[in-house]
Amino acid sequence: MENILFLLGIDEDQQLDFQQRFPQAHFTFTDKTSVTKEQLAEATIIIGNPPVGLLSDQLTNLKWLQLNSAGYDEYLQPGVLPPQTILSNARGTYGLTVSEHALSLCLMLMRKLHLYLRDQLSHDWAREGRVKSVFGSRVGVVGLGDIGRNVATRFYSLGATVIGYDIDSEIQLEAVAEVRPMATIGETVADLDVLILCAPATAETHHLVDTSLLNQAKADLILINVGRGDLVDTPALIAHMEKNSDFMAALDVIDPEPLPKDSPYWDVHNLVLTPHVAGGFHLDKTKELFLEIAAGNLKAFFTEPAALQNVIRRDS
Amino acid sequence: MENILFLLGIDEDQQLDFQQRFPQAHFTFTDKTSVTKEQLAEATIIIGNPPVGLLSDQLTNLKWLQLNSAGYDEYLQPGVLPPQTILSNARGTYGLTVSEHALSLCLMLMRKLHLYLRDQLSHDWAREGRVKSVFGSRVGVVGLGDIGRNVATRFYSLGATVIGYDIDSEIQLEAVAEVRPMATIGETVADLDVLILCAPATAETHHLVDTSLLNQAKADLILINVGRGDLVDTPALIAHMEKNSDFMAALDVIDPEPLPKDSPYWDVHNLVLTPHVAGGFHLDKTKELFLEIAAGNLKAFFTEPAALQNVIRRDS
Repeated sequence: MENILFLLGIDEDQQLDFQQRFPQAHFTFTDKTSVTKEQLAEATIIIGNPPVGLLSDQLTNLKWLQLNSAGYDEYLQPGVLPPQTILSNARGTYGLTVSEHALSLCLMLMRKLHLYLRDQLSHDWAREGRVKSVFGSRVGVVGLGDIGRNVATRFYSLGATVIGYDIDSEIQLEAVAEVRPMATIGETVADLDVLILCAPATAETHHLVDTSLLNQAKADLILINVGRGDLVDTPALIAHMEKNSDFMAALDVIDPEPLPKDSPYWDVHNLVLTPHVAGGFHLDKTKELFLEIAAGNLKAFFTEPAALQNVIRRDS
Repeated sequence: MENILFLLGIDEDQQLDFQQRFPQAHFTFTDKTSVTKEQLAEATIIIGNPPVGLLSDQLTNLKWLQLNSAGYDEYLQPGVLPPQTILSNARGTYGLTVSEHALSLCLMLMRKLHLYLRDQLSHDWAREGRVKSVFGSRVGVVGLGDIGRNVATRFYSLGATVIGYDIDSEIQLEAVAEVRPMATIGETVADLDVLILCAPATAETHHLVDTSLLNQAKADLILINVGRGDLVDTPALIAHMEKNSDFMAALDVIDPEPLPKDSPYWDVHNLVLTPHVAGGFHLDKTKELFLEIAAGNLKAFFTEPAALQNVIRRDS
């Protein structure tokens, strides 16, 4: 019998649903702050993200780890998982919530709602002048994974022309007019009105947005980062924004995180910050999406293991 | 020869374009604060909104008035225009800008950006909890004119189910799952997550949102008003919001306008205010859309007067 250890909080109805769908397994429901070494040692399947510090390659019972995150880098470190453990991630879970967050940040800047809210706080009925529209804009989307594709689809459906950047420039998507190689972004950024970062932190994306790229971009570019803080050279961005008063940016992720209370970045003109909340389980639907993926993979595990989705290669 | 008086500021290239397209006419370009009684008396065609106080039914030269607004009520008052003058409005101009404003306000509330901006102002890296999504929401759109249709299309394309309310409940639109008679809104509002007001101020829409309707709605309804302030009984709304902390609203129009500096409405929890900027010419594309309508109607005037668009009935 499989011992399935659930490490994310789900309500009793959801627990019962899993127990009824998979009567051949024994379920333990806890969370990652309460989980014990003993529970991890007994588990044959883990659903959720266990603390890396509690894992080891001595967990000989562990057949499969289904993460609730899209990111998985830390679980590939040597000694974290036994060699036989299958690792899968939560690709498909976060595209909806992250893309709606990116869209809301972009529209907020385009309609100057960050300025109107300040006016409201000071009781000022004041017009803030020109606005922009998603309709008719040229929008660059960096990273065409699940999140980037969701972002592309939403902007396309609102009448934007979407240009994708990806390491795989052969990708073809209805919502994306053109896919450019990631490495060409510096040379080609000049024709974009909006640039949305949706890529993971890798060697190729480290400080993708730097002084050189910013100097090639339109002076009134709108930059949105819902990927990783490491994609942006933050001091370079701030210096650029101080010289270009029409440049706008909204960062849900920033280097460093959390941003210290005395950071001058909080007060930069036309810079909007949110505290890494685009993803996570802030949207109920996101947890539903993850549970669908987990249930689908559990079904595959018991009936057709070759059909497991989102399996991460561990052989590199 | 027609004397065409332009009452909205357009740049020299745009002026030249009109002069070249309609060489049979004489153009005067001014604006509504500078326009003189003499210019109005000489005009056979006016493009733009002249001050009602300068008009009279003695302007015997005036054949046609092409407004740059969607609203036209004040020009129907007795004595404002001579009986022979054709009146047309700017329907088709404002759907884009108003619908993107409505969407940006809705997303701002759903993602709690109005709270995150306050946190940013106080340098707080703080999570504000649950968010909502347009995807999967049931969105009521009140008024299915040009603006309401644009709103419906955008929310539908993002995965919402759109319910329309209109005096004409026979309207059929791909983006609208169901059209309900305007008068039934009180009985049917309970199944909506979002309610967006896009209707003009008429006898049917006066205080459409009142205590009775609010008491039928979900406690966490999101209300957006980009129509007219008169559609909402403002004191009733404020009283309701003070009792229901999960209710959110964003009002671009409000009764009264401008909102006085000492109004308590500025500080209501989960109420976002913008100063009647959804429409107007804040978006460059809006003026382009109006000039296309004006040019199309000028062409019709000179070649096929029966094809004039957006003509308002004056016989009532």
